[in-house]
Amino acid sequence: MPDAVPAFVWVGALPSAGTALLLEESAAHRVARVCRARVGDRISLSDGRGGIARARVARLTSGVTVEIENVDHRGRDATAVLLCGAPEGQRFDWLVEKLAELGVARIRPIDCARARWAPGAVRPDRWQRLAVAALEQSRSRHLLEVEPPAPLPEALAAETTGATALVADPDGAPAHGFDRPESGLLLAAVGPAEGFEEGERASLAARGFRGMRLSENRLRTETAALAWASWWASSR
Amino acid sequence: MPDAVPAFVWVGALPSAGTALLLEESAAHRVARVCRARVGDRISLSDGRGGIARARVARLTSGVTVEIENVDHRGRDATAVLLCGAPEGQRFDWLVEKLAELGVARIRPIDCARARWAPGAVRPDRWQRLAVAALEQSRSRHLLEVEPPAPLPEALAAETTGATALVADPDGAPAHGFDRPESGLLLAAVGPAEGFEEGERASLAARGFRGMRLSENRLRTETAALAWASWWASSR
Repeated sequence: MPDAVPAFVWVGALPSAGTALLLEESAAHRVARVCRARVGDRISLSDGRGGIARARVARLTSGVTVEIENVDHRGRDATAVLLCGAPEGQRFDWLVEKLAELGVARIRPIDCARARWAPGAVRPDRWQRLAVAALEQSRSRHLLEVEPPAPLPEALAAETTGATALVADPDGAPAHGFDRPESGLLLAAVGPAEGFEEGERASLAARGFRGMRLSENRLRTETAALAWASWWASSR
Repeated sequence: MPDAVPAFVWVGALPSAGTALLLEESAAHRVARVCRARVGDRISLSDGRGGIARARVARLTSGVTVEIENVDHRGRDATAVLLCGAPEGQRFDWLVEKLAELGVARIRPIDCARARWAPGAVRPDRWQRLAVAALEQSRSRHLLEVEPPAPLPEALAAETTGATALVADPDGAPAHGFDRPESGLLLAAVGPAEGFEEGERASLAARGFRGMRLSENRLRTETAALAWASWWASSR
């Protein structure tokens, strides 16, 4: 049997210690049906914004009510943000799941010269569900946020200047030569399946994005994004 | 438009320079239909065992015939092998694709105390197709090999002793503290979704497998495997 671990669920907001909370439907389902918690059991709640509460299951009738015992807030000590070109097919869905598990803070899909995000591929509700499931799976304090697509220049203008910035590039410097990103904001850009255009590369370089080679092989968009997130996660 | 790159296809075996080769059906389809090569075009062929040939399309009727112009063989300078517990659902399929892109040499699925590979989840033909597609996508010399499942003790006994060996472990030492695996054989073990049992951990430790923490978060089986492969790829 697996090690017994208490249920860990995402809730939109955490009330303060000492109060009762009626869980929303999906959280209640997870606690009562998936984790089969019983009255008196301790569970953990995450608000996805740094807060984790320990709570006790108080009622399992008319929904699930828990009593908040204590709440602990912690900010991120490092924040990874990905600007991501459109991958092929449905490959972005599992990228959302994987980057959420690895602790990436935010993904901004970018429309590029060679490839725009197809309207049908933009599924914010599904992405949110995948991010929530990954938060619960990885018992994380922080929920991955996936923004709506924006054109690359607009996405670049919206990001903090001065952050450490990398662009996945098979001709870039090897990843092992980069400093470990111990804290602060790390921005990364990965081109669409068709790659960045020359002008896009130049504007990334002008904003301080340094080319990083993640593998000896050519990587698909989603594999490069994942290799970058793994590099970031394993460097910490 | 994407940069024009010559077709790159996998063939089971490469004849020597100067000979003609009638491509097998899937390779012929890729050359003629997917890449729309024309007579006289140059293409690349990989045998997945270190050999890459440059060839010229000689005929597009009654199949596709190419003339081999030159062949270049190179061995792997580093070999990564993964012993992999059963992940949930169909998650292994895309792991095959991703590890192939990242240049992993071989995966041995392992049956563990807490989880065996379900017979229906073992799909060697599909895995081979995914590995071939990834080889072609990443223009690689080497084809990922996926073996049939074996019990952990048997899998361990079959691997070379003395190789650098790691086991994905949330309580292990941080990945950034490990030496870069520049060459040679690197073995890694990742537990099934339910984790390794204490006895399995002990037998891995006894064989020199050191625990490596790949992320601050708990990772699913396939995410840990991917994070390890990304760490390996980015260390090189």
